[in-house]
Amino acid sequence: MEERSVGIVETQYLTCCEPPQELLLSCGEKLGPITIAYETYGKLSSNKNNAILIVHALTGDAHAAGYHQGSDRAGWWDAMIGPGKAFDTNKYFVICSNVLGSCKGTTGSASIDPKTGKPYGLSFPVVTIRDMVKVQKFLVDHFGIKKLLAVAGGSMGGMQTLEWSLLYPDMVESAIVIATNYRHSAQQIAFHEVGRNAIMADPDWQNGDYYGKTIPARGLAVARMIGHITYMSDHSMEEKFGRKVIDTERRGYDFSAHFEVANYLKYRGDSFVQRFDANSWLYMSKACDHFDLAQDQKLTDVFANVKSKFLVISFTSDWLYPPAQTKQIAKALKANGVDVTDIGINSKYGHDAFLVEVDNQSKVISHFVERIAKEAGN
Amino acid sequence: MEERSVGIVETQYLTCCEPPQELLLSCGEKLGPITIAYETYGKLSSNKNNAILIVHALTGDAHAAGYHQGSDRAGWWDAMIGPGKAFDTNKYFVICSNVLGSCKGTTGSASIDPKTGKPYGLSFPVVTIRDMVKVQKFLVDHFGIKKLLAVAGGSMGGMQTLEWSLLYPDMVESAIVIATNYRHSAQQIAFHEVGRNAIMADPDWQNGDYYGKTIPARGLAVARMIGHITYMSDHSMEEKFGRKVIDTERRGYDFSAHFEVANYLKYRGDSFVQRFDANSWLYMSKACDHFDLAQDQKLTDVFANVKSKFLVISFTSDWLYPPAQTKQIAKALKANGVDVTDIGINSKYGHDAFLVEVDNQSKVISHFVERIAKEAGN
Repeated sequence: MEERSVGIVETQYLTCCEPPQELLLSCGEKLGPITIAYETYGKLSSNKNNAILIVHALTGDAHAAGYHQGSDRAGWWDAMIGPGKAFDTNKYFVICSNVLGSCKGTTGSASIDPKTGKPYGLSFPVVTIRDMVKVQKFLVDHFGIKKLLAVAGGSMGGMQTLEWSLLYPDMVESAIVIATNYRHSAQQIAFHEVGRNAIMADPDWQNGDYYGKTIPARGLAVARMIGHITYMSDHSMEEKFGRKVIDTERRGYDFSAHFEVANYLKYRGDSFVQRFDANSWLYMSKACDHFDLAQDQKLTDVFANVKSKFLVISFTSDWLYPPAQTKQIAKALKANGVDVTDIGINSKYGHDAFLVEVDNQSKVISHFVERIAKEAGN
Repeated sequence: MEERSVGIVETQYLTCCEPPQELLLSCGEKLGPITIAYETYGKLSSNKNNAILIVHALTGDAHAAGYHQGSDRAGWWDAMIGPGKAFDTNKYFVICSNVLGSCKGTTGSASIDPKTGKPYGLSFPVVTIRDMVKVQKFLVDHFGIKKLLAVAGGSMGGMQTLEWSLLYPDMVESAIVIATNYRHSAQQIAFHEVGRNAIMADPDWQNGDYYGKTIPARGLAVARMIGHITYMSDHSMEEKFGRKVIDTERRGYDFSAHFEVANYLKYRGDSFVQRFDANSWLYMSKACDHFDLAQDQKLTDVFANVKSKFLVISFTSDWLYPPAQTKQIAKALKANGVDVTDIGINSKYGHDAFLVEVDNQSKVISHFVERIAKEAGN
């Protein structure tokens, strides 16, 4: 374990929205009880003004930093969260929770429906980014935190961050919005739609009712493979794999994975199905596709009432959420006189950059958060 | 039927490589007999110096122009081939054949193996772009044509065009290379690999032995959907669909195709499986992935012996075969002192531009071909 790690951590659970106080969802249905899986790192100060909420991407979870007992796999943003890191746990109290509808401890389609005693499956309501944020609000309230020093996230996490700043403007001192869009574009929807089709085309999917039976592993693996291509840049893929081949008897004159890139994608697809639920992939991807901050409004009008300061980060080689899209958000905020730091980071890692481009991103974030804390009088 | 159409045309068939004169393939296996499906438009001149060979892309066929009796569907490059069009059939004799391994009349995996009396299925050898070109050579020889005025094609057709200029340098007066790469990149391979995985993950695929049974329609539809996304630009998708929705009872709060882009992709996927063979998709995509003109050589050295003049066309918004890749070919040719016209056409249509960007492409091509014909002393 490296020196600046938060060390061994444990996922915690909180239950909210117990009947008759179910959560009213965007779709109009009510849901409850809801279990929230979360982790925290660092210490909440006595006046509770040093909390940072980290929000995760499509297949993320509450385990953002440190290690679980007996595992050598670090949390998904471990490079960014810890003593002396971008989100410095010597100074800040960092919270990360698994989103509503996911399969990593928070209630989702794989959870048991208390009404039937069986997994929800497709009877689980289609949730939105806004629904996810409302659930996170319960967790923040649970700690008695009145105002978050920052909400931060990339990709689907960026959408949640934007939603936080609009839904609870008085609770968000600052918003760190990374590699995202204020609404899913046709191409972004299209990639998700193909993934969903791949899952639903798998006969093992059984209209979502596969729990305790064979999981739709082949369909989910294909969805994940598509995802992986969109997360990498053309350049990083070329650099990592190029046309390198695995020595096979048939020298590629068959349909086995002959190129290293094929082998890699297949491996990533096959290992993903061991750790993620196919239905949850449907729900998470659909939440992104639904996401549209602007609806029929102009984007500048959308931000009329935000009170947060913003850090907006994009990466040059990200073609899934191109910098121009992320920068549109910064531009619309600026048009409202909002305090915005708009940073484009030069990176070859594509959309994955928000996870792997640690050095430059850390500098930008730690500097921003320090300023915010100072200006907030902490 | 519009005025400048070649009118009603009929697909013709030629058989070559009959045992014991089978074709020796790149993989080392021999194949024969081979049926070649082809069409021709215009008239071959008495000295046979006005022939142009059109080579098609992944899912193309011999029907490049005009109409089949009883059908109102024009050939796939009808906008470019006809009296007074880019490939002017008043002047030139235009040939287009279905490639080896496809399923549109030329021998492929869905054809009957004379040795067994059953469809080849996966016992059909994995063919290469070079193998396709060798089969086309039989067709050109059959007409007694010693030199083609031009070989022209986009995407996989561009690969065949390049291969023609290297394999039969004395037979190619000029090469028109459009929206392609001299070797498939890791990203290009990756998109194909996911498509192949989607097909092979379909239980109906049955290791390729599905003829006369249920076809692997769901897998093939997913592969086609992925393809469609890569053929369009982000911009053209946004312009065509944006976030437009189809009115559904559940307002998108389910997993049916709610967004128009989803509906479109689903329609294109489902209609594609009616007209294309899943195994052929495996063979065609693998041929592209195998394609590597350079191997261990420098690209400039590869073109040392070409004798053709070149027109190289790329499209600004093509992100599947980005202009920079296509332009690399022009650059390497120029380094060898080859007569190259390198044209980047401003287009918003992405990779599809080679099929739909008719006006600008026509001007460039007709001007080039006229010059070539004049310089050849026709």
